[in-house]
Amino acid sequence: MLGAIEAGGTKFVCAVGDEKGTIIDRIQIPTTVPEETIPKVIEFFKQYSIKAIGVGSFGPIDVIKESPAYGFITSTPKPGWRDFPFVNKLQEAFSVPIGFNTDVNAAALGEAKFGAAKGLDSCLYITVGTGIGAGAIVQGKLLQGLSHPEMGHILVRRHPNDEYQGKCPYHHDCLEGLAAGPAIEARWGTKGDQLVDRLEVWDLEGYYLAQALMQFILILSPKKIILGGGVMKQQQVFTSLNRYLKEFLNEYVSLPELTDYIVSPGLGDNAGITGALMLAYQAFQEEFIH
Amino acid sequence: MLGAIEAGGTKFVCAVGDEKGTIIDRIQIPTTVPEETIPKVIEFFKQYSIKAIGVGSFGPIDVIKESPAYGFITSTPKPGWRDFPFVNKLQEAFSVPIGFNTDVNAAALGEAKFGAAKGLDSCLYITVGTGIGAGAIVQGKLLQGLSHPEMGHILVRRHPNDEYQGKCPYHHDCLEGLAAGPAIEARWGTKGDQLVDRLEVWDLEGYYLAQALMQFILILSPKKIILGGGVMKQQQVFTSLNRYLKEFLNEYVSLPELTDYIVSPGLGDNAGITGALMLAYQAFQEEFIH
Repeated sequence: MLGAIEAGGTKFVCAVGDEKGTIIDRIQIPTTVPEETIPKVIEFFKQYSIKAIGVGSFGPIDVIKESPAYGFITSTPKPGWRDFPFVNKLQEAFSVPIGFNTDVNAAALGEAKFGAAKGLDSCLYITVGTGIGAGAIVQGKLLQGLSHPEMGHILVRRHPNDEYQGKCPYHHDCLEGLAAGPAIEARWGTKGDQLVDRLEVWDLEGYYLAQALMQFILILSPKKIILGGGVMKQQQVFTSLNRYLKEFLNEYVSLPELTDYIVSPGLGDNAGITGALMLAYQAFQEEFIH
Repeated sequence: MLGAIEAGGTKFVCAVGDEKGTIIDRIQIPTTVPEETIPKVIEFFKQYSIKAIGVGSFGPIDVIKESPAYGFITSTPKPGWRDFPFVNKLQEAFSVPIGFNTDVNAAALGEAKFGAAKGLDSCLYITVGTGIGAGAIVQGKLLQGLSHPEMGHILVRRHPNDEYQGKCPYHHDCLEGLAAGPAIEARWGTKGDQLVDRLEVWDLEGYYLAQALMQFILILSPKKIILGGGVMKQQQVFTSLNRYLKEFLNEYVSLPELTDYIVSPGLGDNAGITGALMLAYQAFQEEFIH
């Protein structure tokens, strides 16, 4: 049995399952402060005999194994979670291998193993919700360098008619600052799910996401692009972003049919937790092999 | 003995050397048409007993081994070279393994093995010259997905005082359209090497390159960034781009000291040809192992 945690800013999803991605039991725990949330996580897993735990966490986190802060949530603004030693706390309770990565990297892994990118050695998973983040599989492995990517904060060109100043505390009008859920709400004065019939809302959203996808395609050349998160439940965004992407790229690179290439998660809302299960399996295998 | 070709739009550099990157002999051949250039390439290599050839080529090229057009230069505007079966032509003359990749990927490989990124499993090599292109090493391997990257064509935000419309035939004012050598010449009315004392020229160049580096860092998180090509011989561009990059990133990600992180090629103008030697060595090893 493997344990999986999808640690989000609002809730933790915990699950037990197997290396085939089958989920046997799961719970949700509100993300309050570590002193409250983590004991409940431990209590859930203590019911089972688990061989490894995989964590897909909100960030930024330290994923570099050689780093002194490996396994920590680092500079998050979320009260109580800054410099939280996530992996250490789990290892105090369970002496099993722990896999630790970002929530979006976990989702990318889940989709590459069992979802929309099944069978491919390359994909990009993007979530557009409270924030914007992305994880990538490159030649079969999670993309990592100096640290994990922070793709949500890339620069986009402002639409000439968009006067909203942007919501990112670091960059104002970066992608996340202009196109995440809170930016939609702040710009139009009401939440996205109340704006379903306002075509201009989703047209503008597509305009910004298409720019982001253009950069991702030119830099990473992913074999499949998967867009998840609350905002992407508005299917009309796909139509708008495909149209703008075609216009922006202007046939410079040859791509598969966009409706096959840019898709919703094959695992729906289970991409992240399934990927966390895969992180557990990878951690187990690494311990077993080395 | 290994053979290496750095195939550029103006000249071919051909060299023979060894797997340690030592170059034993080299020549330059003007890039005219394949019927003229390629026989001279073959003549050069025929003097030696070579075990493999590595090619770093101008593009776009087809690097996907499963593709029917693998080993071709594909949709280049350069007369005579469109749909040129580069690998096939070499294999007709030499029955040895051929490594084939982009010029910038070859340079990235050269720098990762013997240059400024020696010992690192991750780096980004960018050339800023007649065009802008980049190659990346990710977890020890050349980044490749659906195809090779085309990073020179990413979108940047236009400087509010820059009225030059841009030179890219596909995207007008993408990075290459605004910041490659021909754009500098077209905007200021004279070649870059005549503009050394014009501070505003290099300040603007840094403004565009800093945006590109911001995107590359947030998406790829490379461990070292190497900037080569004719335009980067103006060392003042580094000063300007570091200043803008600091401003744009606004400490959102933690990076090494920028003067150590963003550097000139350790191999100087030999990055590409040295990397092509490494492509030859890899092709030889693959043939030998499999």
